[in-house]
Amino acid sequence: MNADIRDQFPILHQEINGRPLVYLDNAATVQKPQCVLDVSQRYYSDINANIHRGVHYLSRKATDAHETARSYIAEYLNAPHEHEVIFTSGTTDGINLVADTLALSGKITSDDHILISGLEHHSNIVPWQMLCQRTGAQLDVIPITDSGEWDLSEIDSLLTDKTKLVAVNQVSNALGTINPIRELIAKAKAVGAWTLIDGAQSTPHMAIDLQEIGCDFFVFSGHKTYAPTGIGILWGKTELLEMLPPWRGGGEMIKEVTFAKTTYNDLPFKYEAGTPNIEGGIALAEALKWMKDIGLATIASHEDKLLTLATAAISEIEGIKLYGTAANKASVLSFGIEGVHHYDLGTLMDQMGVGVRTGHHCCQPLMQRFGITGTTRASFAIYNTEQEVELFIQAVKKAAMMLR
Amino acid sequence: MNADIRDQFPILHQEINGRPLVYLDNAATVQKPQCVLDVSQRYYSDINANIHRGVHYLSRKATDAHETARSYIAEYLNAPHEHEVIFTSGTTDGINLVADTLALSGKITSDDHILISGLEHHSNIVPWQMLCQRTGAQLDVIPITDSGEWDLSEIDSLLTDKTKLVAVNQVSNALGTINPIRELIAKAKAVGAWTLIDGAQSTPHMAIDLQEIGCDFFVFSGHKTYAPTGIGILWGKTELLEMLPPWRGGGEMIKEVTFAKTTYNDLPFKYEAGTPNIEGGIALAEALKWMKDIGLATIASHEDKLLTLATAAISEIEGIKLYGTAANKASVLSFGIEGVHHYDLGTLMDQMGVGVRTGHHCCQPLMQRFGITGTTRASFAIYNTEQEVELFIQAVKKAAMMLR
Repeated sequence: MNADIRDQFPILHQEINGRPLVYLDNAATVQKPQCVLDVSQRYYSDINANIHRGVHYLSRKATDAHETARSYIAEYLNAPHEHEVIFTSGTTDGINLVADTLALSGKITSDDHILISGLEHHSNIVPWQMLCQRTGAQLDVIPITDSGEWDLSEIDSLLTDKTKLVAVNQVSNALGTINPIRELIAKAKAVGAWTLIDGAQSTPHMAIDLQEIGCDFFVFSGHKTYAPTGIGILWGKTELLEMLPPWRGGGEMIKEVTFAKTTYNDLPFKYEAGTPNIEGGIALAEALKWMKDIGLATIASHEDKLLTLATAAISEIEGIKLYGTAANKASVLSFGIEGVHHYDLGTLMDQMGVGVRTGHHCCQPLMQRFGITGTTRASFAIYNTEQEVELFIQAVKKAAMMLR
Repeated sequence: MNADIRDQFPILHQEINGRPLVYLDNAATVQKPQCVLDVSQRYYSDINANIHRGVHYLSRKATDAHETARSYIAEYLNAPHEHEVIFTSGTTDGINLVADTLALSGKITSDDHILISGLEHHSNIVPWQMLCQRTGAQLDVIPITDSGEWDLSEIDSLLTDKTKLVAVNQVSNALGTINPIRELIAKAKAVGAWTLIDGAQSTPHMAIDLQEIGCDFFVFSGHKTYAPTGIGILWGKTELLEMLPPWRGGGEMIKEVTFAKTTYNDLPFKYEAGTPNIEGGIALAEALKWMKDIGLATIASHEDKLLTLATAAISEIEGIKLYGTAANKASVLSFGIEGVHHYDLGTLMDQMGVGVRTGHHCCQPLMQRFGITGTTRASFAIYNTEQEVELFIQAVKKAAMMLR
């Protein structure tokens, strides 16, 4: 990694408890480069106004900036159409939009099945449970192997012509597994099921080409891709977004309102009721541009190097149990230590300046699969260094020694 | 107004088309004081991390900042309980949360009525239309007088024991009318109806005391109260928020997830699925504190003075028709000019540096009530000046002369 990159993150240059901060909680949220912070500031110091309905200069300028951001994001994702890119408040919002409008559409009945995997984040479990409760549909789950991968050995009995939708993540936030989504999407297509890909954990680490992926819906969050919180993207195929009913009602999503009858706006506005997170959308485009300028391959190879180093070093520690040992992984090292509670481990590591995440990572069913309550998780971003990996390993060793 | 206040808004010190910017589109969104922008920047340069589930220093610090913000907002609104303050992405999100969970709750049936007013913004019309479509309930509308006020003469036949919910704004965004919400809430209580107050347009101009107002739900947006876009508040009474089912499913809003059964978290987290707009919540608290430091009475009296000046001066112009002539108004001057289209007027005024809003202001039914397609609307904030009112009046005169 270029030292110039790290210099763009003011937050990283601080001490925690007298030690240099080692921030390894990137799978929860990443830090923001100065150029993204600057874009937000400039938005408010130069052009802030409400968008789409104003004839005055600032409103036109803010609308341009917002729609240029949408256009850039569409291009970044290789989306067939710009109007398929919907601004949301985040991944959770996007998944709920699809689940809720599917429920309202009447397209899901008690004969139908929804297929998810045992690797999913709660945000890609609970909305489908709620959909199933409302419609009587059945939730099926792809089992997980000991290495933390999809067990597709019985996929043909799980994914049938009763399956209406397959919703899975591309990368597991808890274990880092990169899932073979193309294979699953092909199988889903063969039985006529729609597919939703949760890209919250993949988008930070790899280039996304929606046309190549071939899914029907794709969601991700800004705050994991170097942009602020409160913004995310739902992409969906035109025919599906047109088929589904509106979700939130309000300004912008309507064509005409009378008390007798209301008609709805075209895409993307149909799903963007109310004043959007204007600044957030613009900052998200800037963040993606920043990632592209560095190069997604460069980001991935840097993170892979750190992950490989960390995995090798941690495996030497006595009593270590790694969770997620797939060959194909991104950024995440999840582990337990015999006789040590993850919470205690994380707390002691924090005192040494090392920030890691502990607990169930919003994946309780996955933890249940492994018979544990949680793991300690280190996750790497482009700004992390080999030296930080060393400090992390030292901290694990020292904390484990103190706790055993 | 103190010149110090205006100095806190970097955006206002620019020229548009060679003229000093006169920003009078504050009812659409207000500009942000430097202290609010600084809080957002400091959040990202000092403490950014994901909240609630982290043991490390930054996560604890970010959680503290977020929950301190909630606590301040609860205090600011005089909410009985902090856990009743739900972070949303804005007013529209909050209203849809209530409308959608009411639909899901089964508490609204085809025997029920929902009462709104003819002054409502689309965000307080469309969600109720959608609720009525789903449940078969009937939408009733309080008619509007020629002065742009509620006509309560037949309220006792509109608001009956069949009325389940009354949803109205406290201040009309299109006309500025301050509505007698306490009177209506008392009547709603007498027939056992719940009440939702849309405070999007009142919160920027007056102190809000929820316990004194006595409603069941209250919603507003950050971006109209000097905070960023993408953040808002839904406040609701504990017993109602506990009675209603969850809305968005995902992380944070659960207690325990298994594939067999999921249990939901307590308030406020039950309604806060996913990573929230952490920065936005913190900035919103700062913005409200900034307003309180100036004094809500000071803000209101300054805006009232500008509104009075502008109203008197514009009334002298030939062919002017004012919309919204109630005695009790806040900030908004909405008007038409005989023989002149509002769009053309706004466009010409923009060329003179004056930014006003033109069109239906997301209130098409209200425009239909007055038999017009839209108005030109000037709206004032604490940083506007008497000199700007003069420039506005000159621009109206000049543009009208050119267009007639």
